[in-house]
Amino acid sequence: MPTPLIVQKYGGSSLATADRIRHVARRIARERANGVDLVVVVSAMGDTTDELLGLAAAITDEPDPRELDMLLATGEHQSATLVSMALHALGMAAISLTGAQAGIRTDTSHGRARIANVDPARVRREIGADKIVIVAGFQGATDESHAAGEVTTLGRGGSDTTAVALAARLGADRCEIYTDVEGIFTADPRVVPDARLLPIIGYEEMLELAGQGAQVMQTRAVELGWVNGVEIAVRSTFSDHPGTRIKEDPDVEQRNKVRGLATDRHVAKVTLVAVPDRPGVARAVFEPLAAAGINVDMIVQNVGHAGATDLSFTIASTELARARKLLDTVVRQLGARELTTDSAVAKVSIVGAGIQNAPGYAARMFGALADAGINIEMISTSEIRITCIIAEDDVEKAARALHAAFALERPDTAGAGATAAAG
Amino acid sequence: MPTPLIVQKYGGSSLATADRIRHVARRIARERANGVDLVVVVSAMGDTTDELLGLAAAITDEPDPRELDMLLATGEHQSATLVSMALHALGMAAISLTGAQAGIRTDTSHGRARIANVDPARVRREIGADKIVIVAGFQGATDESHAAGEVTTLGRGGSDTTAVALAARLGADRCEIYTDVEGIFTADPRVVPDARLLPIIGYEEMLELAGQGAQVMQTRAVELGWVNGVEIAVRSTFSDHPGTRIKEDPDVEQRNKVRGLATDRHVAKVTLVAVPDRPGVARAVFEPLAAAGINVDMIVQNVGHAGATDLSFTIASTELARARKLLDTVVRQLGARELTTDSAVAKVSIVGAGIQNAPGYAARMFGALADAGINIEMISTSEIRITCIIAEDDVEKAARALHAAFALERPDTAGAGATAAAG
Repeated sequence: MPTPLIVQKYGGSSLATADRIRHVARRIARERANGVDLVVVVSAMGDTTDELLGLAAAITDEPDPRELDMLLATGEHQSATLVSMALHALGMAAISLTGAQAGIRTDTSHGRARIANVDPARVRREIGADKIVIVAGFQGATDESHAAGEVTTLGRGGSDTTAVALAARLGADRCEIYTDVEGIFTADPRVVPDARLLPIIGYEEMLELAGQGAQVMQTRAVELGWVNGVEIAVRSTFSDHPGTRIKEDPDVEQRNKVRGLATDRHVAKVTLVAVPDRPGVARAVFEPLAAAGINVDMIVQNVGHAGATDLSFTIASTELARARKLLDTVVRQLGARELTTDSAVAKVSIVGAGIQNAPGYAARMFGALADAGINIEMISTSEIRITCIIAEDDVEKAARALHAAFALERPDTAGAGATAAAG
Repeated sequence: MPTPLIVQKYGGSSLATADRIRHVARRIARERANGVDLVVVVSAMGDTTDELLGLAAAITDEPDPRELDMLLATGEHQSATLVSMALHALGMAAISLTGAQAGIRTDTSHGRARIANVDPARVRREIGADKIVIVAGFQGATDESHAAGEVTTLGRGGSDTTAVALAARLGADRCEIYTDVEGIFTADPRVVPDARLLPIIGYEEMLELAGQGAQVMQTRAVELGWVNGVEIAVRSTFSDHPGTRIKEDPDVEQRNKVRGLATDRHVAKVTLVAVPDRPGVARAVFEPLAAAGINVDMIVQNVGHAGATDLSFTIASTELARARKLLDTVVRQLGARELTTDSAVAKVSIVGAGIQNAPGYAARMFGALADAGINIEMISTSEIRITCIIAEDDVEKAARALHAAFALERPDTAGAGATAAAG
């Protein structure tokens, strides 16, 4: 039987100090003692990435994306070498590799590069030499035969993507994402005290939760795991709790149909009031936003009357100033009455693969919010998610009300899950 | 006529803050405006290298040399990207390259790698695209066809070597080393107030000065310049003074035969008292030191009497503790009477290519020290240098006495030089 291969990823908070790096090394060494091969992907130490961004900002307002990638990639180079050194100090054979050395090949989109392929030769060679391989996450290199490739970075949280991509290409038995929380919860435990850790969650559910504000894992990494069938464990660096496994969930029918809820305060609502109700209006509004790289989330257009309609949508609140500037022009061109914006709103979502086959969940969600005295400003749904925009001040109350209404605190062993689903 | 090519190197103190990086960028841009091509080699910002060494030391007492190189190399990656960004902010086309990207190929001696060759293709391509090329100094990569090469570093001051190697390989018209002093002085201006900046110094003289304690430039870089006929200018980042040119000096006959003096406080004197006077003793003493990597400088053995002799030598004072440990064993094995050490000593040297053909300089040096009431403990000479070991407390007095005795403050225009040489 071949030796099992595990890919682990440690986030920046797990590596913020020399002490924590030594702790992580002991954890890796203990796993190694179980007779497994290990590839360990690391983020930059603590706030290193933000500090490097600060340095660049002190030099120029518009850092060249190619130079910025080379600058930021050094953060993970540093942490990778330090983890490797800490393993050596424990008597373990280890080697650190940059993303380029680890064979992470990307396209040329600096700052948000996509992994084109993974050349596993070097990593396999080091594993074959009985070494623990430490890979600098968040980065790769373009493939240029005439020179050393250009360093690229994968965007925020890219280290998760590095880990899952390596796990997929190497055919790893497990991919473990170590972070500073114990796993995926039914809601943010800081807001909902009886939030429950989910032992298992499906890929699609995880995607919806992450996309609606749950910060634990990058959606790209979850997608990549889904497409490649990589089972991902989300665990705490600081405890031995087994955490949450993200995988195809065969027992979905037996569980509470709502798996969890997500909240996101970083949204702003934009409304174009009394826009002429004619073809081409939506394009005139959304094309300039797309060209500026502003991501539009929920879009709601009411039925018009008297030849005009209101068009509302949400964006990240950090984009509001830029969006306003673009839309002021659009509003004039279209002859709309006015542009109103509100950044004191928040999203609250319930997510569960079972929702799509079980009617009535939307009604129960709206009822629970109404019972709590919370006004719903916008609604949007996907197959497995229902999202409401509410006032930002109401978001914690809403989370607690929905958590209770759907009995998310109940454990989902097969029996209890069935009860919850029926409840 | 082809566009002139200049290689510049900026040290860590010149790049210690965002403000200084912007200053360096303006300086580069001004040079570029003169219609020249530019390759700029940079050190790590300020104390970055020491900070990274501190991080490694917090993890382990014996960092793996390969991992340490990868860690340290990030310092120059960072400064190279920031200088490039600062040039972009001034509207200049620039690109930063790692040592590996710049084609610096080295042997595999991590921490003190030697440059094996320079592949100039990428740098030439970027110059051809009208870009200012910023190269991370102090580093290279091993040449491995099967993978991205291993990152190596060239040892302290290695960025000077990077600059001279690139200047040699690219056939640069000038190589300029920018630092925080205005050039090479006849003596340390902090010690000798009328120390004079030398407009020109020969390679060999520079080597002897640097080897005897003048800290401005690495001896390796000077050697490399000498072998390849690269003229090196040592200049200040913070002024427009033309500095010192290090080059073959055709006018050496017309100048003061003593070019400068160097002092070094970081030495210790070791004496094995009453060592048996028989073959093999010197080997028994120096082989263990060499094996431990301890560099021995001056060696003096007096004529023996009664079958025994005293053997003295100097080492860096930082190596004294390690050397004592090794030599205690040697003293017992050889049956020597005792081992004495003294770290309160210093070296003072006069250097000049003219010394070798002009008798009497040693006598004048000893006379000047005697007149100043300074006792000479050891003497050693090379073709173009005379060095005395004296008490550390006397070193500043000795420097001033020798500077005056050889009239080093007099300018060496052809006429004045002839006068000084005769004086």
